[in-house]
Amino acid sequence: MFGLMMDRPLLISSIARHAELQHPHREIVSVANDNPRHRYTYRDAFARARKLANALKRLGLQHGDRVGTLAWNDYRHFETYYAVSGSGYVCHTINPRLFEDQIAFIINHAEDRWLLLDPVFVPLLEKLQARLPKLEGCIVMTDEAHMPATQLPRARSYESFIADESDAFDWPEFDERTASSLCYTSGTTGEPKGVLYSHRSTLLHCYASALSDVMSLSAHEVVLPVVPMFHVNAWGLPYSCPMVGAKLVFPGSKMGDAETLQALIEEEKVTFSAGVPTVWQGLVAYLEKTGKRIDSLRRIVCGGSAVPVALMKQLAEQHDVEVVHAWGMTETSPLGTLRCQTPEADALPEQEREALRAKQGRTVFGIELRVEDDNGVEVPRDGKSFGALKVRGPWVAASYYKRSGDDVFDERGWFNTGDVATICPLGYMQITDRTKDVIKSGGEWISSIELENLAVSHPAVAQAAAIAIPHPKWQERPLLVVVLKPGATATAAELLEFMAGKVAKWWLPDDVVFVDKLPLTATGKLSKLQLRQQFADYQFPANQAG
Amino acid sequence: MFGLMMDRPLLISSIARHAELQHPHREIVSVANDNPRHRYTYRDAFARARKLANALKRLGLQHGDRVGTLAWNDYRHFETYYAVSGSGYVCHTINPRLFEDQIAFIINHAEDRWLLLDPVFVPLLEKLQARLPKLEGCIVMTDEAHMPATQLPRARSYESFIADESDAFDWPEFDERTASSLCYTSGTTGEPKGVLYSHRSTLLHCYASALSDVMSLSAHEVVLPVVPMFHVNAWGLPYSCPMVGAKLVFPGSKMGDAETLQALIEEEKVTFSAGVPTVWQGLVAYLEKTGKRIDSLRRIVCGGSAVPVALMKQLAEQHDVEVVHAWGMTETSPLGTLRCQTPEADALPEQEREALRAKQGRTVFGIELRVEDDNGVEVPRDGKSFGALKVRGPWVAASYYKRSGDDVFDERGWFNTGDVATICPLGYMQITDRTKDVIKSGGEWISSIELENLAVSHPAVAQAAAIAIPHPKWQERPLLVVVLKPGATATAAELLEFMAGKVAKWWLPDDVVFVDKLPLTATGKLSKLQLRQQFADYQFPANQAG
Repeated sequence: MFGLMMDRPLLISSIARHAELQHPHREIVSVANDNPRHRYTYRDAFARARKLANALKRLGLQHGDRVGTLAWNDYRHFETYYAVSGSGYVCHTINPRLFEDQIAFIINHAEDRWLLLDPVFVPLLEKLQARLPKLEGCIVMTDEAHMPATQLPRARSYESFIADESDAFDWPEFDERTASSLCYTSGTTGEPKGVLYSHRSTLLHCYASALSDVMSLSAHEVVLPVVPMFHVNAWGLPYSCPMVGAKLVFPGSKMGDAETLQALIEEEKVTFSAGVPTVWQGLVAYLEKTGKRIDSLRRIVCGGSAVPVALMKQLAEQHDVEVVHAWGMTETSPLGTLRCQTPEADALPEQEREALRAKQGRTVFGIELRVEDDNGVEVPRDGKSFGALKVRGPWVAASYYKRSGDDVFDERGWFNTGDVATICPLGYMQITDRTKDVIKSGGEWISSIELENLAVSHPAVAQAAAIAIPHPKWQERPLLVVVLKPGATATAAELLEFMAGKVAKWWLPDDVVFVDKLPLTATGKLSKLQLRQQFADYQFPANQAG
Repeated sequence: MFGLMMDRPLLISSIARHAELQHPHREIVSVANDNPRHRYTYRDAFARARKLANALKRLGLQHGDRVGTLAWNDYRHFETYYAVSGSGYVCHTINPRLFEDQIAFIINHAEDRWLLLDPVFVPLLEKLQARLPKLEGCIVMTDEAHMPATQLPRARSYESFIADESDAFDWPEFDERTASSLCYTSGTTGEPKGVLYSHRSTLLHCYASALSDVMSLSAHEVVLPVVPMFHVNAWGLPYSCPMVGAKLVFPGSKMGDAETLQALIEEEKVTFSAGVPTVWQGLVAYLEKTGKRIDSLRRIVCGGSAVPVALMKQLAEQHDVEVVHAWGMTETSPLGTLRCQTPEADALPEQEREALRAKQGRTVFGIELRVEDDNGVEVPRDGKSFGALKVRGPWVAASYYKRSGDDVFDERGWFNTGDVATICPLGYMQITDRTKDVIKSGGEWISSIELENLAVSHPAVAQAAAIAIPHPKWQERPLLVVVLKPGATATAAELLEFMAGKVAKWWLPDDVVFVDKLPLTATGKLSKLQLRQQFADYQFPANQAG
């Protein structure tokens, strides 16, 4: 028997309607390509979004068609989010930092009919143009005065495109499961994979992420999203901020520019921000050098990679800014876990609280985590047992766009993150390794990251990598590959002795080899894939292990 | 085109699962019938809810079957909420304060198969027993030691009912639109009407009500619901508190007992409460008399009827407690509007802020309001224009249980609240009258409540009621019915002169009549229905109005 409640769909356009009526005067401030400090209100923004919706409709776009964006965080990109998804088209945000081949691949794979792009990306798209046969036209997100000369198909400026349109537009109603936006993950191997969000998943993520113990968003916050709008919808902030009526401050292309960020924070009285750790490292260094301040800022949600404890301390002690550690993926919209302080955690001694802060956090309501061993059995939530981290929830991907057979979606309805993790009794999850890097010895798992952290704590070691080497008896055993500090010396035996007693005995590497340097990926990270290839023929000394 | 996100249903059982894993040690404290201060944790609560689910299953209940409760706010009622709805049955909370005829009507109308009831309600149900042919059995919510002797069908104590059951139970998964709970409105006229909530509506209401600018619920709050669990699910708190991990304090049958409430607040460090204005008036009087304190309490959500400004001031100034004014109905789950402070409102002078606090508040995200004139045209949001208040959203009723043809559900999908309201430019809604009490003069509406408030501000007037009298030219004109203070005297002309200039000229009553007393409803409210009947034959003096 069904309940007898209204069958109102959860639609992105309802955020627009709500913000216009409830928060008409709240501001959106942007660093735009044609204005270093553009400023208007939610009322203005959604009126322009409706003009854009009318203009897009005139192009003959149909429900479900993909419209791409190649753009930084600013007000026109914000308007595009609402005009495209609100109309029932799919807003495909493209990461301009990808390799050109990948950008061409995803525009073609998504079958984007039109693209809206910042002037700065016109040369990039012109280079790819010949390889994009299905692209019908381009809107350059600027005004006539700043419109570059270009041969892009049917190119015109955003402002001329919407200028003559009416700002009256009735947002259509449709099934809340309708696709709203598309974002490709840029994995290190293989083709980029598209995650196709729905209106429902976006709105549920929005509610959950704004909760008091999560991002605690409210009409009194001033929010600076330093995570790009092409990166998992800027963690949902362009939706959750208008939902609660928070003021939005968009840094445009100046996302990595500490000087701009500091100026925006101080001048716009930013209270809350979000971004990856490197952004904050850059900002902290800039503040140290200049003596400038960020007094209004109170909280930063930080994710994308593990946040160094030193950075958290620096921000807390020198700037009174609380870093909220979060974890998520493109496939999880992205919010999976977040620090979520609890009275139990508050009551712990400072050292233990610090250890908790370094973890990825606790599940947001709606998300379920499961840490499994090799047999699919859930491991205890004891903070020590680790296994494959799986996740499910209404804002988690069920499959990739136009792909099938990806085994990351398991047969019981869980998404396999590819991470290895522990969960402690207080519910805090910590990522300890990547599934492909963990070393499986005798049916048990050894964390490569823990071995590496231990090895680099030896005074002679500059860098270390632990990789799995096939083993006839134990399936796999760890090999430690070490780069010594310039002028330092150490033997394999010395290092193993140093490590002994600090990890379980059976975790100790079967051998240590010394190299001049470790292979890196294109983005400068250690490439364990290449390292494993390099040691493909390696064999442990006959007398080792057993 | 649909998004490719997991099709995870929003189910009440997911709150249980989340709270058990994320907030296992948070407490639920209850004033129970067999223990003045029962205390356990969410982990204990949901383990017992699963035992109860196993016991209910053994009764042969089927998906969708109704299970009634006649109970105060305590931990067993909380367990029942989850066991019943989580199993896929419908938890029908019955208001024991209704007339006996109404209680018998709704138990039969709902076709409750089993009832769970507090020992104190056993005599009541025994009286009705002969009229409840479909009731199969009763569980008395106490232990064996406190089990009363009774002839109720298959009666046994709650504790013996669940004692031998396993606490292992897999909450079933089903469509989120499945009915979860049932609550009858006790209108002043006609049969009670049942609102049938769904899992979906309950969870969306839960997310929205917990937001920072709404109830701002978090794991650090200690919540005392003084609104009964048979009254619109205690405004959703038994769901939203475990969702965020707030400690719950249930006052049992002592809901109206200021001494118990004060003791619970001080001893359990209650930070947040919710209830109707009369509860807080009683508490404030008790504190004044005894000099006792409620230092931990910071916020009260107050609704059900308009909150007197004097009460808000007293709580703020003497006890540092902020009253958050809210509005809702059984048909709206109940949350519709809530104060939701904004920076714009904060910036106003104190007098204007006070006027805003007296209003019913702003819409929670998910709820839409519409104020319509007689022709169904939306009136301006100017804080002055008023009309019929309509509401829609995913937690608003679409129809009543086993009824049809109720014209409160309009053909365009809005629920007509029966209230007359204004909405101001900042989005604050204020109820100015009931639709049936408003006076329609020459196509314009006159607020009976405003006329009454003005009349009672005259020093000689004790009570006043303004009602509509049919008028040949103007359709309706106001008649003011007045009870003078003992010993006071005033004439109609004096009163009209007093009122002149304080409302629009055409609002002034066409006549004033004096009576000894005004007719009251069973619950002590002014009965305008009876008053209109009393003055059915009244005719205005010939020389009046025009």
